[in-house]
Amino acid sequence: MTFAATILTLYPEMFPGPLGVSLAGRALGEGTWSLDTVQLRDFGIGKHANVDDTPAGGGAGMVLRADVLGAAVDSVADERPILAMTPRGTPITQARIRELAMGPGVSLICGRFEGFDERIFEARQIEEVSLGDIVLSGGETAALAILDACIRLLPGVMGAANSGVEESFEDGLLEHPQFTRPQEWEGRTIPQVLRSGDHAKIAAWRKHRAEEDTRLRRPDLWERHKGVRDQSASGARHENKDDRQ
Amino acid sequence: MTFAATILTLYPEMFPGPLGVSLAGRALGEGTWSLDTVQLRDFGIGKHANVDDTPAGGGAGMVLRADVLGAAVDSVADERPILAMTPRGTPITQARIRELAMGPGVSLICGRFEGFDERIFEARQIEEVSLGDIVLSGGETAALAILDACIRLLPGVMGAANSGVEESFEDGLLEHPQFTRPQEWEGRTIPQVLRSGDHAKIAAWRKHRAEEDTRLRRPDLWERHKGVRDQSASGARHENKDDRQ
Repeated sequence: MTFAATILTLYPEMFPGPLGVSLAGRALGEGTWSLDTVQLRDFGIGKHANVDDTPAGGGAGMVLRADVLGAAVDSVADERPILAMTPRGTPITQARIRELAMGPGVSLICGRFEGFDERIFEARQIEEVSLGDIVLSGGETAALAILDACIRLLPGVMGAANSGVEESFEDGLLEHPQFTRPQEWEGRTIPQVLRSGDHAKIAAWRKHRAEEDTRLRRPDLWERHKGVRDQSASGARHENKDDRQ
Repeated sequence: MTFAATILTLYPEMFPGPLGVSLAGRALGEGTWSLDTVQLRDFGIGKHANVDDTPAGGGAGMVLRADVLGAAVDSVADERPILAMTPRGTPITQARIRELAMGPGVSLICGRFEGFDERIFEARQIEEVSLGDIVLSGGETAALAILDACIRLLPGVMGAANSGVEESFEDGLLEHPQFTRPQEWEGRTIPQVLRSGDHAKIAAWRKHRAEEDTRLRRPDLWERHKGVRDQSASGARHENKDDRQ
């Protein structure tokens, strides 16, 4: 089944861009995913095909019109989720990427200027999604990153079958650090345990480093990871109790 | 002064990509920023110019070699910060983007495969940076997003001089919602206050909505915002006390 991506944008020429190269480009050529772009200006108002207007209440910049966005969104409406790229949105997670990659595809709306007329989110089923806590000139580079993250998970795209399982965020932790040849570089050696051939020891070291690095680098992820662990532990106890009734 | 961007990548053909269009493309043409790419393979080892090898200790995928990365990084070393795109990194913030945009430029290392040999981060001054909690097929789309965020802040790139001041994350809050014409769309009207012409009321409404939306959508940002506010309040009190001594 082809994963169908539709991008609603004022700059369709930005796509596939980097996704026309390498892994994603090959998968696009092979029909693993498909790409459509919708030019928002085609839904513009009046003879100048206006897509935006000044912010109600004043202020700099321009706001994308709800009527234009509504018509554009309605033109692509199907069973696929519709995501709008906006810094006001929910930060995207690897769990959501996995869900998207298992589905029929995704439509992505890319804003420009000062953003979207808020009424579009009241009137249509649209997920407001943020890539990170930075402000872009438009949603296009965010859409490229999110699509890339989905495409690499599609069946057959990554070389090794199990690549993508043991990696950052998949279990709520950062991935452990990696090392490769040469054995010694600038006086620095690969940790002894990784050269031991003892698979249990290696797995234990990696788990320890994943936990330690997450705790030190990303206390926010670590707190959530601990919370989930505690919850599932108490959930397990609870189930056991129910079984005994 | 030109903001100089250098990208270290196995896919230089991905650049400028979307940044060759629109605001960033115009600014590139005008010399507001410059773009260089460095092909990591040029620093590859042996007659096959190998850049990667299997992970020490086993596992799927390939790891970028420290010796290859070291030589490539040394070839671009100057006063500019060097950022490596990795999910193990510190999440990039708008504050860091502002710092970068005020500086001479940035070098961005894009990984592929299973990431970087960790020794490169011990041996060189490199910032490990993450765009969001998702896993990409490579750092290239992350580099494009980070560059885009920097470029729009360069002098002369955005149309309105004050655009970029009142926006998400600049004061640790999400931006307030926006509205524009038409006055009524599908029975939904623009909030009355925004049509009042009362600038003080409008500013108060926007501040309230920015705070409310941040509290409801991003409790993490809200906690940090409150913390900073409390700290600066207590800091101010403390200073006053010192003055009185």
